[in-house]
Amino acid sequence: MDKPLPQGISAQTFAAAVSEFKDAVGAEYVFTDDKAHLRSYRDAYSTLDDSNFAPSAAVAPKTVEQVQAVLAVASTHKIPVWTISTGKNFAYGGPAPRKAGYVVLDLKRMNRIIEVNEKHGYAVVEPGVSYQDLYDYLQARGSKLWIDCAAPAWGGIVGNTSDHGAGYTPYGDHLLMQCGMEVILADGTVVETGMGGVPNSKTNNLYKYGIGPWVDGLFTQSNFGVITKMGIWLMHEPPGYMPFMVTLPREEDLELITDIMLPLKLNMVIANGALTADLLWEASMSTTKRQYYTGTGPVPDSIRKKIASDLKLGMWNFYAALYGPPPIMANNWKIIEAAVMQIPGARIYLDEERKGDTGWDYRVKLMRGIPNMTEFSLLNWVGGGGHINFSPISAADGKDSMSQFHMIRERAHEYNFDYIGEFLIGWRDQHHIFMLMFDRMSDDEKARAHELFGVLVEDAAKLGYGEYRTHLSFMDQIADTYNYNDRALWRMHETLKDSLDPVGILSPGKMGIWPERMRDKQS
Amino acid sequence: MDKPLPQGISAQTFAAAVSEFKDAVGAEYVFTDDKAHLRSYRDAYSTLDDSNFAPSAAVAPKTVEQVQAVLAVASTHKIPVWTISTGKNFAYGGPAPRKAGYVVLDLKRMNRIIEVNEKHGYAVVEPGVSYQDLYDYLQARGSKLWIDCAAPAWGGIVGNTSDHGAGYTPYGDHLLMQCGMEVILADGTVVETGMGGVPNSKTNNLYKYGIGPWVDGLFTQSNFGVITKMGIWLMHEPPGYMPFMVTLPREEDLELITDIMLPLKLNMVIANGALTADLLWEASMSTTKRQYYTGTGPVPDSIRKKIASDLKLGMWNFYAALYGPPPIMANNWKIIEAAVMQIPGARIYLDEERKGDTGWDYRVKLMRGIPNMTEFSLLNWVGGGGHINFSPISAADGKDSMSQFHMIRERAHEYNFDYIGEFLIGWRDQHHIFMLMFDRMSDDEKARAHELFGVLVEDAAKLGYGEYRTHLSFMDQIADTYNYNDRALWRMHETLKDSLDPVGILSPGKMGIWPERMRDKQS
Repeated sequence: MDKPLPQGISAQTFAAAVSEFKDAVGAEYVFTDDKAHLRSYRDAYSTLDDSNFAPSAAVAPKTVEQVQAVLAVASTHKIPVWTISTGKNFAYGGPAPRKAGYVVLDLKRMNRIIEVNEKHGYAVVEPGVSYQDLYDYLQARGSKLWIDCAAPAWGGIVGNTSDHGAGYTPYGDHLLMQCGMEVILADGTVVETGMGGVPNSKTNNLYKYGIGPWVDGLFTQSNFGVITKMGIWLMHEPPGYMPFMVTLPREEDLELITDIMLPLKLNMVIANGALTADLLWEASMSTTKRQYYTGTGPVPDSIRKKIASDLKLGMWNFYAALYGPPPIMANNWKIIEAAVMQIPGARIYLDEERKGDTGWDYRVKLMRGIPNMTEFSLLNWVGGGGHINFSPISAADGKDSMSQFHMIRERAHEYNFDYIGEFLIGWRDQHHIFMLMFDRMSDDEKARAHELFGVLVEDAAKLGYGEYRTHLSFMDQIADTYNYNDRALWRMHETLKDSLDPVGILSPGKMGIWPERMRDKQS
Repeated sequence: MDKPLPQGISAQTFAAAVSEFKDAVGAEYVFTDDKAHLRSYRDAYSTLDDSNFAPSAAVAPKTVEQVQAVLAVASTHKIPVWTISTGKNFAYGGPAPRKAGYVVLDLKRMNRIIEVNEKHGYAVVEPGVSYQDLYDYLQARGSKLWIDCAAPAWGGIVGNTSDHGAGYTPYGDHLLMQCGMEVILADGTVVETGMGGVPNSKTNNLYKYGIGPWVDGLFTQSNFGVITKMGIWLMHEPPGYMPFMVTLPREEDLELITDIMLPLKLNMVIANGALTADLLWEASMSTTKRQYYTGTGPVPDSIRKKIASDLKLGMWNFYAALYGPPPIMANNWKIIEAAVMQIPGARIYLDEERKGDTGWDYRVKLMRGIPNMTEFSLLNWVGGGGHINFSPISAADGKDSMSQFHMIRERAHEYNFDYIGEFLIGWRDQHHIFMLMFDRMSDDEKARAHELFGVLVEDAAKLGYGEYRTHLSFMDQIADTYNYNDRALWRMHETLKDSLDPVGILSPGKMGIWPERMRDKQS
């Protein structure tokens, strides 16, 4: 296969750009060899042929000055650069760019932990710092600060936060806990947001809004600038921690648990990123589909019952934790027990009863910010490990949850896939994650998965639901469902894009935002 | 005095525009008579001659379509319009525009409470809805939802939130509690942000970030669009409420109380917008300066001691509250009592000991979201009621608080003014509000106050402090202190301004952001 080039760029121009990239960051940090290096920037889990997202090169700067130099080269030659931090983002495209031929701007060498403030509870990190890195750093210094990590520990803090990622402790809304950013604009200008606008600011990572327009959100899930530094608030270790699980015997219990938990979440009796996961999500932590079922299509109900019984799981499984001084936890526990008792057949588990159980152990870690990689067991549920996440926002409301669940499950079964999903509970909403697992060695399964995903986007939009994050393949389609008033919001994004990145070099097409010169070609 | 016209606009053009404004909103809602109407859009408390901020007209649309029509007229004639909601914003310029001659776009007739959702705890309001309005609406319907109001109840929810205002309950960070916006751009395009981009969205006011760039912050403290609708989260009435006050005998106790309270705030033992107010702030609720001191300049120490003793106040006075089930409040109370006991001479007051005391009663109301106007008693401290707020952000840190306090008090005394101030405690920061009171009938006091304010801005910037909000007179100067990398942040604001409002009609100069055609004339 010929290596792709950026659209409209000649081999000669590309060669000149590569040579200048080498001047900018050093030849050893410009990667053009498909076999040796570029394969690692592919998306292993795409439902389309992954050559659709194959980069032409990758460039890995170490400093702000090197990023500026890379952007200058890209501007000169109109080369699209696709920014990644640690480059994980599995199920949403991984490190791969939106289009074949882009150059990946890989920031993983910018991996300094610039500051940790124990008293005020924050860290300032570069994009290459993973959750595991920060955790290790804090542990090595005996810090009493917790992190809040994405389920896979190798995720980057800056990448996950700027993709609106969520975690499982009380600091689970990662963007909420972000404070202060350094951003490089397409023309190389270095901007400090918020209080960082004041030189030698004493409050850069303590107060989010600065004065004037608060711009931080503008640089998340977008392509308006390159974030090179981020402040992130960290929780102080509480005096107590008590994780628990509630198994729910019936599918329709999703409605009850959601409505019962809403007031507890709103009143912060449950303060953390609690969640309700379906049977198969949990089962995949300790078994595989093949062990129970070798037929085609979704696991039948009778077998689901056997799995539940064997593994002591519910059709739904609710996880949350209490934090704080023991007397306060004890009081909150009484409230929670009384609430759960309203659900017939619900059963509460504490640590002593489930310790050693893989599915339980990793949740216990996540809810106190200990990074791990256990959730990847999901990839073994079917052979081939393909997965792509369909992630609509639902209300934290029983009927709304059931309606989304039914909508997705029916379509999934229609396309012969299992429903494997979880509801991550926010304050008033839920991130509903349907993990669409397919055998990535099967072209048929990939094609079916791709079609199903597209149908779900439309089904959801018709009911007034939108997604919070998505895979490269579906960014345009989903952006088009946010089409109130003839795409007014996206037309505004395009205006902003053209003003901040007039040449159109930064991550073109990210979340359906294309620069002017590439816009017509897409729609 | 001749009525001012917008800069560069002829009387003829202005007359044509006024006539078209009348076509847009009805003649009775276009105000041009200085005596009858326009005086109410002046800033009564400016340190400069208020004719610097005298509008040429005011236009009060009732609907989105009328706002669009007004903006179309403004665009045609290049008339600057200055958006206000309820138009209070005292101490920061009130309803007055940045420059003489602007037309005030007064949204107070857009006063619908569009939705209240009791289960999920939110309201959707138009800009003309005041805190008092929403409170009355909820009370009339027996709602169990609390509001979080600005100290003066007449403040508008949309205006206060978009100016990054703060309140006193656990929902005191107003921008944090905002979810969903309708914005009209300068060209009349109506944009729904966040999940509202999906037509008939079911989660518009439940999840903040939508997909793609999160733009809501862009429309706060800025002039990039006109907010015409806002979702705001409301707290459910907790099962218990226990306000308390701690009086602190010495000025240096500010350091102790700040450091003692920080971990309690971080761990949410104290969950609300707590604050530490100085002696004179509190004293002004029930007495006046004249009753204690008729000399010139700041109140001497000996008299301050007498005031403290007479009114049972401390040199600093800390207010906070507990919320929740009684057993949890009881446990938290033990922690708080033990912490306060570390401060020699500190004394705790509960409701039964201070009920009826004006200063206490209004704090009790504010910390549970009952709107009132008591804080305006401050205006009687000196004759003439002039005041302007200098509002730097400080770290929630004892030494940092003391350093800001000393910096401001020394300058205030140098200029012969009292230090009257409070520290509103956020999660990791404090809003330090120095209320600079002056006799607005005295040209000398106004001139001294004006000079002092400018000096404080520079003093603060040299130490790495910036303000979070400011008066019209000081927007340019303060924007210039956010000058990291040659004003990179403000240059970006200017780029955004030119792209979203190319004609430059929306609130030119708000927070130091000028449209291209007026930029050179300012700097």
